[in-house]
Amino acid sequence: MAQVVCFGEIMMRLAPGGYLRFEQADSFEAVYGGGEANVCVSLANYGLDAAFVTKVPANPIGQAAINEMRRYGVDTRYMERGGERLGIYFCEKGASQRPSKVVYDRSNSAISQADKADFDWQTIFAGAKWFHFTGITPALGDNVAAATLEACKTAKAMGLTVSCDLNFRKNLWTSEKAGKVMNGFMPYVDVCIANEEDAEKVFGIKAADTDITGGKLSHEGYRQVAKQLADRFDFSAVAITLRESISASDNNWAAMLYKDGAYHFSRKYPVHIVDRVGGGDSFGGGLIYALLSGYPAQDALEFAVAASCLKHTIEGDHNHVTVSEVKTLMAGDGSGRVQR
Amino acid sequence: MAQVVCFGEIMMRLAPGGYLRFEQADSFEAVYGGGEANVCVSLANYGLDAAFVTKVPANPIGQAAINEMRRYGVDTRYMERGGERLGIYFCEKGASQRPSKVVYDRSNSAISQADKADFDWQTIFAGAKWFHFTGITPALGDNVAAATLEACKTAKAMGLTVSCDLNFRKNLWTSEKAGKVMNGFMPYVDVCIANEEDAEKVFGIKAADTDITGGKLSHEGYRQVAKQLADRFDFSAVAITLRESISASDNNWAAMLYKDGAYHFSRKYPVHIVDRVGGGDSFGGGLIYALLSGYPAQDALEFAVAASCLKHTIEGDHNHVTVSEVKTLMAGDGSGRVQR
Amino acid sequence: MAQVVCFGEIMMRLAPGGYLRFEQADSFEAVYGGGEANVCVSLANYGLDAAFVTKVPANPIGQAAINEMRRYGVDTRYMERGGERLGIYFCEKGASQRPSKVVYDRSNSAISQADKADFDWQTIFAGAKWFHFTGITPALGDNVAAATLEACKTAKAMGLTVSCDLNFRKNLWTSEKAGKVMNGFMPYVDVCIANEEDAEKVFGIKAADTDITGGKLSHEGYRQVAKQLADRFDFSAVAITLRESISASDNNWAAMLYKDGAYHFSRKYPVHIVDRVGGGDSFGGGLIYALLSGYPAQDALEFAVAASCLKHTIEGDHNHVTVSEVKTLMAGDGSGRVQR
Amino acid sequence: MAQVVCFGEIMMRLAPGGYLRFEQADSFEAVYGGGEANVCVSLANYGLDAAFVTKVPANPIGQAAINEMRRYGVDTRYMERGGERLGIYFCEKGASQRPSKVVYDRSNSAISQADKADFDWQTIFAGAKWFHFTGITPALGDNVAAATLEACKTAKAMGLTVSCDLNFRKNLWTSEKAGKVMNGFMPYVDVCIANEEDAEKVFGIKAADTDITGGKLSHEGYRQVAKQLADRFDFSAVAITLRESISASDNNWAAMLYKDGAYHFSRKYPVHIVDRVGGGDSFGGGLIYALLSGYPAQDALEFAVAASCLKHTIEGDHNHVTVSEVKTLMAGDGSGRVQR
Amino acid sequence: MAQVVCFGEIMMRLAPGGYLRFEQADSFEAVYGGGEANVCVSLANYGLDAAFVTKVPANPIGQAAINEMRRYGVDTRYMERGGERLGIYFCEKGASQRPSKVVYDRSNSAISQADKADFDWQTIFAGAKWFHFTGITPALGDNVAAATLEACKTAKAMGLTVSCDLNFRKNLWTSEKAGKVMNGFMPYVDVCIANEEDAEKVFGIKAADTDITGGKLSHEGYRQVAKQLADRFDFSAVAITLRESISASDNNWAAMLYKDGAYHFSRKYPVHIVDRVGGGDSFGGGLIYALLSGYPAQDALEFAVAASCLKHTIEGDHNHVTVSEVKTLMAGDGSGRVQR
Amino acid sequence: MAQVVCFGEIMMRLAPGGYLRFEQADSFEAVYGGGEANVCVSLANYGLDAAFVTKVPANPIGQAAINEMRRYGVDTRYMERGGERLGIYFCEKGASQRPSKVVYDRSNSAISQADKADFDWQTIFAGAKWFHFTGITPALGDNVAAATLEACKTAKAMGLTVSCDLNFRKNLWTSEKAGKVMNGFMPYVDVCIANEEDAEKVFGIKAADTDITGGKLSHEGYRQVAKQLADRFDFSAVAITLRESISASDNNWAAMLYKDGAYHFSRKYPVHIVDRVGGGDSFGGGLIYALLSGYPAQDALEFAVAASCLKHTIEGDHNHVTVSEVKTLMAGDGSGRVQR
Repeated sequence: MAQVVCFGEIMMRLAPGGYLRFEQADSFEAVYGGGEANVCVSLANYGLDAAFVTKVPANPIGQAAINEMRRYGVDTRYMERGGERLGIYFCEKGASQRPSKVVYDRSNSAISQADKADFDWQTIFAGAKWFHFTGITPALGDNVAAATLEACKTAKAMGLTVSCDLNFRKNLWTSEKAGKVMNGFMPYVDVCIANEEDAEKVFGIKAADTDITGGKLSHEGYRQVAKQLADRFDFSAVAITLRESISASDNNWAAMLYKDGAYHFSRKYPVHIVDRVGGGDSFGGGLIYALLSGYPAQDALEFAVAASCLKHTIEGDHNHVTVSEVKTLMAGDGSGRVQR
Repeated sequence: MAQVVCFGEIMMRLAPGGYLRFEQADSFEAVYGGGEANVCVSLANYGLDAAFVTKVPANPIGQAAINEMRRYGVDTRYMERGGERLGIYFCEKGASQRPSKVVYDRSNSAISQADKADFDWQTIFAGAKWFHFTGITPALGDNVAAATLEACKTAKAMGLTVSCDLNFRKNLWTSEKAGKVMNGFMPYVDVCIANEEDAEKVFGIKAADTDITGGKLSHEGYRQVAKQLADRFDFSAVAITLRESISASDNNWAAMLYKDGAYHFSRKYPVHIVDRVGGGDSFGGGLIYALLSGYPAQDALEFAVAASCLKHTIEGDHNHVTVSEVKTLMAGDGSGRVQR
Repeated sequence: MAQVVCFGEIMMRLAPGGYLRFEQADSFEAVYGGGEANVCVSLANYGLDAAFVTKVPANPIGQAAINEMRRYGVDTRYMERGGERLGIYFCEKGASQRPSKVVYDRSNSAISQADKADFDWQTIFAGAKWFHFTGITPALGDNVAAATLEACKTAKAMGLTVSCDLNFRKNLWTSEKAGKVMNGFMPYVDVCIANEEDAEKVFGIKAADTDITGGKLSHEGYRQVAKQLADRFDFSAVAITLRESISASDNNWAAMLYKDGAYHFSRKYPVHIVDRVGGGDSFGGGLIYALLSGYPAQDALEFAVAASCLKHTIEGDHNHVTVSEVKTLMAGDGSGRVQR
Repeated sequence: MAQVVCFGEIMMRLAPGGYLRFEQADSFEAVYGGGEANVCVSLANYGLDAAFVTKVPANPIGQAAINEMRRYGVDTRYMERGGERLGIYFCEKGASQRPSKVVYDRSNSAISQADKADFDWQTIFAGAKWFHFTGITPALGDNVAAATLEACKTAKAMGLTVSCDLNFRKNLWTSEKAGKVMNGFMPYVDVCIANEEDAEKVFGIKAADTDITGGKLSHEGYRQVAKQLADRFDFSAVAITLRESISASDNNWAAMLYKDGAYHFSRKYPVHIVDRVGGGDSFGGGLIYALLSGYPAQDALEFAVAASCLKHTIEGDHNHVTVSEVKTLMAGDGSGRVQR
Repeated sequence: MAQVVCFGEIMMRLAPGGYLRFEQADSFEAVYGGGEANVCVSLANYGLDAAFVTKVPANPIGQAAINEMRRYGVDTRYMERGGERLGIYFCEKGASQRPSKVVYDRSNSAISQADKADFDWQTIFAGAKWFHFTGITPALGDNVAAATLEACKTAKAMGLTVSCDLNFRKNLWTSEKAGKVMNGFMPYVDVCIANEEDAEKVFGIKAADTDITGGKLSHEGYRQVAKQLADRFDFSAVAITLRESISASDNNWAAMLYKDGAYHFSRKYPVHIVDRVGGGDSFGGGLIYALLSGYPAQDALEFAVAASCLKHTIEGDHNHVTVSEVKTLMAGDGSGRVQR
Repeated sequence: MAQVVCFGEIMMRLAPGGYLRFEQADSFEAVYGGGEANVCVSLANYGLDAAFVTKVPANPIGQAAINEMRRYGVDTRYMERGGERLGIYFCEKGASQRPSKVVYDRSNSAISQADKADFDWQTIFAGAKWFHFTGITPALGDNVAAATLEACKTAKAMGLTVSCDLNFRKNLWTSEKAGKVMNGFMPYVDVCIANEEDAEKVFGIKAADTDITGGKLSHEGYRQVAKQLADRFDFSAVAITLRESISASDNNWAAMLYKDGAYHFSRKYPVHIVDRVGGGDSFGGGLIYALLSGYPAQDALEFAVAASCLKHTIEGDHNHVTVSEVKTLMAGDGSGRVQR
């Protein structure tokens, strides 16, 4: 009986070692992740009972994905087996001025071909308190969007808090399609999470005076965005991550939270990046944990930002940190002194 | 201007290191191969101008496949770029009583969605002497079968020798479908290559008194199979590889050749296996090289068998041996003494 | 609610890559195993609900051991946290005439310092059908022996079948001590498992006319040993594994089962060894699965032997095979032909 | 028929993994590179037909060098086979205050013992537009210098543009010898490339007020150097790379171009270094591509600097980037945001 | 006959590759180090005859520790064999805000159970000039503290210079115990080395106005600490390392030396960290070398700081640099330009 | 003060991992070995004081060679530093019918350019009992041959036993040259070691009725060869290794010893090969140890053969086994049972 349920795709991530480019690689390191799976692992690492709902093929590759979730304590009983293949994404690590590069090979994945009948939400949500999904899930196909909608409705009806990370992916759908489909989910969403681009790409809500590529972020602009989102969809909370990309090696990382009419801005961390993939997901995981644990808004935000700051220092998609480690950083110790 | 042209799919092969099972693997070694690509690399390694014709996606993964072919000297100018993805197969190395295991993830590959218009066979075959394909290529889809048929007709018309390795794959099509489609190609084929099962699976031609799983092979039975094949389709030559599987670690390896009405049986090699995948392809590569080089039938057969014996000792899909190395083994030196 | 419960130590195994000796190694591959943990993973791999009971330190190394068990589907809720350290064993892979070498560094491990109060057997066994332990567990210390005895008594009282693999370890205790302590457990044991030496080392029951080092095993001798064991302790079944060590690279592997007054001898497998550690444990896992599943005696024996034959082809302590793979081998296909 | 021809040595580079020092290494990563080979790979990566001319031994090590060039699309038909050995260099990656260290083991390499008769420049240059060499090539021996001179003369006579990267190597020859020999080539050179030290070391032309070790570079000083070089040897263009070494981990990277009487200075990139070897060569490759493509001077310079900025983020000697990737950086996006 | 003798523990260090966390690691890189062993390797690398005194188990793991010391030229004849096990520590590399983490598993190590009778200091010190130990050694147990005291007395009596790095380890003993025991050694110590925390933790001598976690260090405060230490224990020299931890990836590194009544402060190095473990030990090694070689105080300090700056760029516990490399950095060249 | 002194070349051996061919390798495993160095490591592993005399370049690569010898306990004080480079050999591991392949790159190595003045044999041999060299050493050049001759004469004069492994290398010199030069050393040699081909290749002494490639060895033939060698050169002992090459994976291994007029033939071991390089050297090491230890002839032979049997199961050039391990095998336990 899980406390939190996440629904989405889990893919095999194949990455060349170190800073090798795809064409130089003779081997690939494999982990298994995805937007919602990453949130789920974060929550399990914090000690929550977190279940991941998806569909993977009934072959050893699908089994390996299940095993990786199990390894980190995720409840995998609702990872259905069937369908054709596990989605794959190839991930090349960037450095300095060279960006990280992701090549998706996810079409026809088992989850993308799943349908409503695959998931019995009444059973899945029994006893749960929170449901999380992202904009990637419905983008996988109309059938998955339909399953997501049913999940949202059931979750709402059963009294769960629902969170959604907008997570716009331009190679899965257009802004137009995204806006239309996502619009249908928003009535069921309580907590909305977005990065500095999502609100505009999905709902056309834009931060004024912001130059993302150049790395400048305006607090005032994000206040406006958050308020517009909350007002339009009646969210109880809106969180926006604020990434300043200095280079592929160095980012500044912060976030804001709009909750109960108040704007909160977090501490800003200069991060020297080990692996930046899953950074946003780890923010979501931290935020859900903190809100579920009843943290005050500013603390919840600081927990989520500190957690996701640490994610940038960890290899792979997942954020392997404990509550205690996050709290140490929240408390101000980012000095990196050896812990013996 | 290639001497030999091969047409088919090239896939990324992902294999756990050593003898790890899929579920144990945290990384995969990547090579790029396929039935016809493997033949093509063999031929390039023997010093022939060999071109590989296929379609790969216009992304870094497709480029990596091209690069691997280039690395070993294959003419890649007709590796078209486009389509959605590169086919993948996962390959787990067996040992002793545990068989090697292959999980295919090849659907919707660029080549499987290619059509006739992608290949200008008149240009491709200009100056060439030999065309090779296998039963895998038409099994990828009706469109690819149509392209293959056009290739066969054009090759025949332009005076090339055409060879076909029957290479039946039960997860790509049924015996019924295979028989029907392959039947249409046979009038254009001069040299037919098969393993100990293919003739039955594709054309219902069966070796009498043979227990393949048990590892017993009857010479007389294979004489019958070869003759029936040659008679039915008017092949100038029929070659059949004869594998006795003692275990995943040890096989006996031999072959027969029926040519000009005479039956030739090769020396039989007890092989301690390093990597058995591509064994049959390396036989095809050796045979094409030897026949193109004008070897007498028995010599051509012995060259092909010695070449493919060596393949079993080499990692990956490809047979990286030189003519001189094959000849040394043909001449009887299988003692494995260090060469300084 | 687990069907099978196993109790014992889990250690970190550190092994140099390939065939490197300890002194040559600059890195070690890490897996987490132990006699009972290995049985537990086997059972989970067959789809049973299997729980592992032990104690590991409350640090990241202990967590890693828990994670490995979770990864393969073991129920880890009774892996207690506390104590000083995780036991370690260093394992060097042998080849040909050079034996594998194990250096234990397990003293003061968390489990060796656990005591009865750490384990609430009533709760642990709720709903379970089978309890398994080995002679290693009580050898870890008198406190652990006491906990084991309590487990045996509780299991018996709650109606579970109890199995014990004698598993004598000369560096943990003497034959005298072992005999005395193990004697106390036997009244609660239903199924006794032993290798070709254990009965003599623990209980002084010797197979006549057997030269273990020389690799000769006499069926008659083992019949006598099994009968003596069963008669002395009133076991419902006695299983003895029969290993003929030709070299570190090649073994013959078989077993016998004495049950209901009948002697069963299995097929004998010549195995080319990938990793021989955990071979006996995988026999135990196979036997428990087969007996729990109601297989007839001969079939249960053949399942256990085929399963453990396959273990010898797999890296690490655990036996990562499915029921279907074991059945394929049981059915006679040990040819190792590639499975596509 | 190549558009660009490069002539020089290709060596095996052996590097310990990560930041290990030579004495700590038990294995070495191998790539194959050299000043001119690196330029050649850059050009092939940009889609030009680029041929590399050299001599490598007729053994598998020489073949491996050829294969690496083929892998990245270089025309290798003029990589002659013969001679004794392939040159080797050992390369240890520095970090922070610890410099990278190169140990050369290149004497008696096949190319260093080649002579004029090995290269038929008339044939090699047929249809080509550009010939590139560096100061390393003639430094390998008087015979190679003679071959280089013949190449220059033939190239000039056949109307090719000739570029030379001065690339002074103090362990190959003295400044005196270098000055004397290089002087003889300059009449045939159109485009001269140098780093911040070469002009002084080879021709005694010094930038005023410049402290290289301290990392300060004076624009005015380099204007003077470029003009003096151009005036003395009648170059159509002089390019000078401007490296400010903050540490082995961080450099500032820029360049200037003097062409048609105008001085152009590029944008300056702060680079966090992955692999700095081949940085200068990648500048040469970018410049040749841009000039051949008819870019205006400032654009050509910016292309070359952006290209070589990216090289510093890539493992190995070669610059594996596409024209499109370079243009993205030229256009100002150095933010390193993930490209999906 | 060694010039310098170091006495302490040597442990196996097991570290996940790259930036993997313990729970993600499937293999560990092994080196062998410890506070005094690291100093000893530094000295051997500078060309001194340096002997390491300890006790390791008489098994292949103990042998591997001896071999690692031998590999780098340490005199190992007084590495006694016996006892139960080699101490182990697990070491996870931090990055940015995530600190490095050390999990010790050193209890019951051979050295911790050694006693006075294991070491014949008269013989060991014959001909030696310097004896070095750290606060870790006596913290291993009262028996080891007794052996250390005997070593100190013998060294003093035989005219050796004695140095001690306070090296407080809170998981080995309390400040109270440390203060009491260390107090007993100080009369025999000539040169005292400490980091910015040790003096307070061991002797309650505190630097005023210093915020270590925040990374601010006050020169005046450290002057006071050094003077108090020297005055209380009559040291001839006191050296204090001054680390400013910006993050786990970036530190500033400097030190001070109080000698002959004069205060010396070194240059401060901003270091981009490869491996920070052993940083303090490498300072000690540098200082001992420089003082033994008769360097003036400021030069000795600068040598030690430059040496230990370089250590931060080297993998593993040991500082693998030569005198010439240290001198190059001392002389001001920290530009990291490639050395060919 | 060494008991045994060995003189020869030490090279860096670069080997692709596993069974990769040279052209497939992107990295090479490095060890440092050579005929005499390997003998020296064997002797150090048996606990003897063994010194290795050679010359290596004064750079980090030469230092790494010294370090590897130190690591295994060899006395390296007479490994002189100077000259140009360390010899290299590339080594590809064979399997089954594919032979191992060695590509030498050893010309101009430091030792090949050393001369008599580099070695002060009087000092080197002080206190020693045995001097060993092989036919490789004088083959490196006339200057090295001269140094070897001086070593032989000095050794003889100082009362050392001198052993020589004929070790003919056809790519270093011709049989004619070898015969002539080696003839000059033989008067100083007491113990002559040879493989099944050397006597013929060097001195034209041939075993009758022997087909080496085919793997048949005649005892009678080798008796003749040994006796002729002993009679011609007045050796006190002649040992001949007898290798039957079944394949690169499986050999039979035995040897004979002719001593004091008696012929001794050893047990024959069927070996499944891990790394066959250094097999002969490990025989020499075992023989020298056993003879120095005063073993009776048959025992000395059995020790040497068992030792070298084990070498075939160990990666790298060196034989890392202890006296106790060899004796266990001598005593008949080749069963490879796990040693716990």
